Amino acid sequence: MASTVEGGDTALLPEFPRGPLDTYRARASFSWKELALFTEGKDMLRFKKTIFSALENDPLFARSPGADLSLEKYRELNFLRCKRIFEYDFLSVEDMFKSPLKVPALIQCLGMYDSSLAAKYLLHSLVFGSAVYSSGSERHLTYIQKIFRMEIFGCFALTELSHGSNTKAIRTTAHYDPATEEFIIHSPDFEAAKFWVGNMGKTATHAVVFAKLHVPGDQCHGLHPFIVQIRDPKTLLPMPGVMVGDIGKKLGQNGLDNGFAMFHKVRVPRQSLLNRMGDVTPEGTYVSPFKQWRLLPYLAAVYALDHFSKSLFLDLVELQRGLALGDRSARQAELGREIHALASAGKPLASWTTQQGIQECREACGGHGYLAMNRLGVLRDDNDPNCTYEGDNNILLQQTSNYLLGLLAHQVQDGACFHSPLKSVDFLDAYPGILDQKFEVSSVADCLDSAVALAAYKWLVCYLLRETYQKLNQEKRSGSSDFEARNKCQVSHGRPLALVFVELTVVQRFHEHVHQPCVPPLLRAVLGRLSALYALWSLSRHAALLYRGGYFSGEQAGEVLESAVLALCSQLKDDAVALVDVIAPPDFVLDSPIGRADGELYKNLWGAVLQESKVLERASWWPEFSVNKPVIGGLKSKL
Amino acid sequence: MASTVEGGDTALLPEFPRGPLDTYRARASFSWKELALFTEGKDMLRFKKTIFSALENDPLFARSPGADLSLEKYRELNFLRCKRIFEYDFLSVEDMFKSPLKVPALIQCLGMYDSSLAAKYLLHSLVFGSAVYSSGSERHLTYIQKIFRMEIFGCFALTELSHGSNTKAIRTTAHYDPATEEFIIHSPDFEAAKFWVGNMGKTATHAVVFAKLHVPGDQCHGLHPFIVQIRDPKTLLPMPGVMVGDIGKKLGQNGLDNGFAMFHKVRVPRQSLLNRMGDVTPEGTYVSPFKQWRLLPYLAAVYALDHFSKSLFLDLVELQRGLALGDRSARQAELGREIHALASAGKPLASWTTQQGIQECREACGGHGYLAMNRLGVLRDDNDPNCTYEGDNNILLQQTSNYLLGLLAHQVQDGACFHSPLKSVDFLDAYPGILDQKFEVSSVADCLDSAVALAAYKWLVCYLLRETYQKLNQEKRSGSSDFEARNKCQVSHGRPLALVFVELTVVQRFHEHVHQPCVPPLLRAVLGRLSALYALWSLSRHAALLYRGGYFSGEQAGEVLESAVLALCSQLKDDAVALVDVIAPPDFVLDSPIGRADGELYKNLWGAVLQESKVLERASWWPEFSVNKPVIGGLKSKL
Repeated sequence: MASTVEGGDTALLPEFPRGPLDTYRARASFSWKELALFTEGKDMLRFKKTIFSALENDPLFARSPGADLSLEKYRELNFLRCKRIFEYDFLSVEDMFKSPLKVPALIQCLGMYDSSLAAKYLLHSLVFGSAVYSSGSERHLTYIQKIFRMEIFGCFALTELSHGSNTKAIRTTAHYDPATEEFIIHSPDFEAAKFWVGNMGKTATHAVVFAKLHVPGDQCHGLHPFIVQIRDPKTLLPMPGVMVGDIGKKLGQNGLDNGFAMFHKVRVPRQSLLNRMGDVTPEGTYVSPFKQWRLLPYLAAVYALDHFSKSLFLDLVELQRGLALGDRSARQAELGREIHALASAGKPLASWTTQQGIQECREACGGHGYLAMNRLGVLRDDNDPNCTYEGDNNILLQQTSNYLLGLLAHQVQDGACFHSPLKSVDFLDAYPGILDQKFEVSSVADCLDSAVALAAYKWLVCYLLRETYQKLNQEKRSGSSDFEARNKCQVSHGRPLALVFVELTVVQRFHEHVHQPCVPPLLRAVLGRLSALYALWSLSRHAALLYRGGYFSGEQAGEVLESAVLALCSQLKDDAVALVDVIAPPDFVLDSPIGRADGELYKNLWGAVLQESKVLERASWWPEFSVNKPVIGGLKSKL
Repeated sequence: MASTVEGGDTALLPEFPRGPLDTYRARASFSWKELALFTEGKDMLRFKKTIFSALENDPLFARSPGADLSLEKYRELNFLRCKRIFEYDFLSVEDMFKSPLKVPALIQCLGMYDSSLAAKYLLHSLVFGSAVYSSGSERHLTYIQKIFRMEIFGCFALTELSHGSNTKAIRTTAHYDPATEEFIIHSPDFEAAKFWVGNMGKTATHAVVFAKLHVPGDQCHGLHPFIVQIRDPKTLLPMPGVMVGDIGKKLGQNGLDNGFAMFHKVRVPRQSLLNRMGDVTPEGTYVSPFKQWRLLPYLAAVYALDHFSKSLFLDLVELQRGLALGDRSARQAELGREIHALASAGKPLASWTTQQGIQECREACGGHGYLAMNRLGVLRDDNDPNCTYEGDNNILLQQTSNYLLGLLAHQVQDGACFHSPLKSVDFLDAYPGILDQKFEVSSVADCLDSAVALAAYKWLVCYLLRETYQKLNQEKRSGSSDFEARNKCQVSHGRPLALVFVELTVVQRFHEHVHQPCVPPLLRAVLGRLSALYALWSLSRHAALLYRGGYFSGEQAGEVLESAVLALCSQLKDDAVALVDVIAPPDFVLDSPIGRADGELYKNLWGAVLQESKVLERASWWPEFSVNKPVIGGLKSKL
């Protein structure tokens, strides 16, 4: 594959425009053109350039800055662009076989331009196409021609409303009727509606439908694929017995029309069974507890962080009262510094935890979490700027580590005590002793209280503080300025130091809150578990440091920590819904069909889908498929 | 705070609707009402309920399912809702002082409904308001009244186009003119335009503007806040010398009008200096290398994962050729299983790495990454379904771990060799010997080749495979079914096993690719660094397991690994731009003002902002501020 850069390659790999990057480009140890040629080869570079140039020169692909395309307009535009790709015919079937890597390259180029376009083209030509192709029978080969001439448009209908990846749970049926030699495709109820199927929403005329095959005597032969016509290619209206529609706006890829379909005893000929297709993954079975367990630590984090933010807010109110009363004491100044240090690390901790928690919820909800109406996207997008507001999180963390380093320097140089108005640093006075401690818990049972995590966190803060301080002095001795030295230490040392310090404070405050004598016993039990879960789960992300510094040793320490987290999740499983009930906003405020308090997620989701505008309506641009047919390769001469 | 649940609380905490969650609710170990009362107290619960009920009963706050609000409509609606909050006057100033926790509670309730609403209200009333209030002078107190009557509308203007959190770099100036006793506020150029300021886009009449204070003799006294009128409250048109506009669509919070402003020698009276305000954080200085370093491992991941996906695709082509030719050999079946195992773990690895990489880029770009026109949001949202498509990532990982466990069982029970057509499992034949190995690298220099990581990864796969196998048998012996046992082991053992196995394969394939004799020496150097960086960076996320299983011991191992990652980042720093040049799509395809190949990010961003529609135009709904004034507390009787 290796090639050298010659004069002739300038057209293939032109120079970049001059600008502020010139300096940086000049510093490279190698020629980017040589690496591009080595990585891709000349033929592939030329192929990609052809595609990119075609798009750039075709007004249909012009970008419209700032335009807010409506869902319908975007879907129309994406369909028109997909049709245009057939007119360019970038990759002939022969080329596909000769240079198979051009297949992913084509999809990649289209995807870089717009992933909705890549998905629409891929699902029709390759996913639907190869499902039909690999069935291998004579009759199905006639479909292939229609696919590549865009006479029909295809989709791949596996998942159903109430179960995604679990193929064993699929409930669409295909009963064989020997009298007429037909299969009867049927959806028993709305939860068995095919759902999330790309291209099904507005465009597809045919679907590969997965259904449980039944033969007379009601013997079930498991999941099989059938090719089923769902719309009339002449009108794009649904076929009799088929209810087909669009599932609505998603968090992304909105050029692709994901859809649903219910079949009411739709009869298809015997030959519709794609009998030579590869097996559907048989192992798509999985229990839900893991889905729930992955979220329990975040539920615990809500309680711990909520308590922390309230208590820190009250500390701030105290500070402001002092200011208002003209208090200019040293304690007041110290209080300001301590609150600043805690808030500067508390914001990164809370905003990152939230971001990860929302993403985990999104993934735990599978596709449905990606549907805009369920509003996990709004939550994620609206929380996202918290990672940047009032200073990038990483910059803020430096303020906290600088606060701690300042206190240590003061202690080392002037023999000062560690003492702060809110007492968050007071434990550091015992730091030489703390550094000598080891993790000595040998059973999971001993670990189920936040006290174990608190001891480990205290050691961790001491260890990282000492390490950071030593590293900083080492940098300074080797000639770095104070500013350079701090920046050099920040990535590896200061950042984790700031995070473990604030995590310790969060855990400490919640621990104390939970162990107040006024807490009723039943509440103390559940809050205690939340406190321990948050503490141990957060701590477990620092296990490498605990080992590295020698607080942990041997296999058991890590195992106990991990098992304790799982044990607490297990103990809290039955309390999960009630714990959510306590903090959940009203349904009206949450406004998420899958998150309503009645728990009827599929009923609510189905209801909401049908409420959207034009769900079942034929696309306004239907003649662009039915009448204005593309001339395959018609634009090839323009390339 | 503790209270018990009495009959009277039913109105405050009504029962949830009956439904499928009843069973789960009945399992809770505590009463959710008791915990809600304990956590919040009756008074706070009542306060929140009042807010939520007011919103739910007011048609202005009705949710419109499926409606795609235009940017302008959403901003108008959000403004109208903010005005309505003043009419409800949920929290009087006296109540604020009496129950300070009601302040964050109000913001939280509004934010649960819509974070744009919370942000708009917060920025005006509390951020702008308290900046003016805490300045403390008599003259500014008159502003407070106007703020709470909504006679003026405020914003807080700190950040500038070309620097966000680095307050030392701010370049807006305020020169004092003793002759007229005025300050002259001035933006030297567009890079010093105030930018990202919430409420500034369409609504604010006044801004707290941070500028460098200069007195005659050109002595600079550092950053100070000034209150500057930017629009006429009667017309919402800009004041003379002020160019003010909207920065456009963001990834979220689009009800909030973030804006920009440039000042052309705008004169404000001496009293505009808010001289008693708290200091602006003085330490907002930070070097950029970290921003770059946080992205370099992802750049290395692109190269390694791209090579892996291409090579695996070619393996798939081989498999399909065999199928087409009717090859039904055992090798063909084994090849199918091996490719399935690699693809099942490769998709989660690639989609998660991509998701994290995009988020890291988003945060590294600060606010500008959150601006919709820069398209990091589209990339993230379009990639997101890859974490769910074709099966949830966690389900897929189970397929890979099951493949490996099956091979081990075959070896244990039948004495079979580890051997697979693509040789990805062949090293397991030596697993007892591999398990005896230890990490014996003591210097960073010895670590700068992917061979070190490869050895560690092989140990890690062997270790996790043995642990998972043992754990599985232990579960089975204790009475779990095969299905239950696999699910129980998956979270703690199977999942990391699948990930480290595919990471090893990715690293192995890229390592071999880079070390081919045909690679030109300069390219081999840079590709070798990428290979080592990806390998060590990925490995470092498993450091806890390396310690736990005894492959790592002592402080040095972890330190060497961490230092090697940083050293490789440092070595690759100068190659970063050229490495991006090799893989970057054309500007037309990327379509991101901050990402253009010429590197003129601020110029391109500024140009693109001014190209958006109605940037500088007054909002169409301006009379809703200027004429239709809210009656403060006018709706309080309705609560």
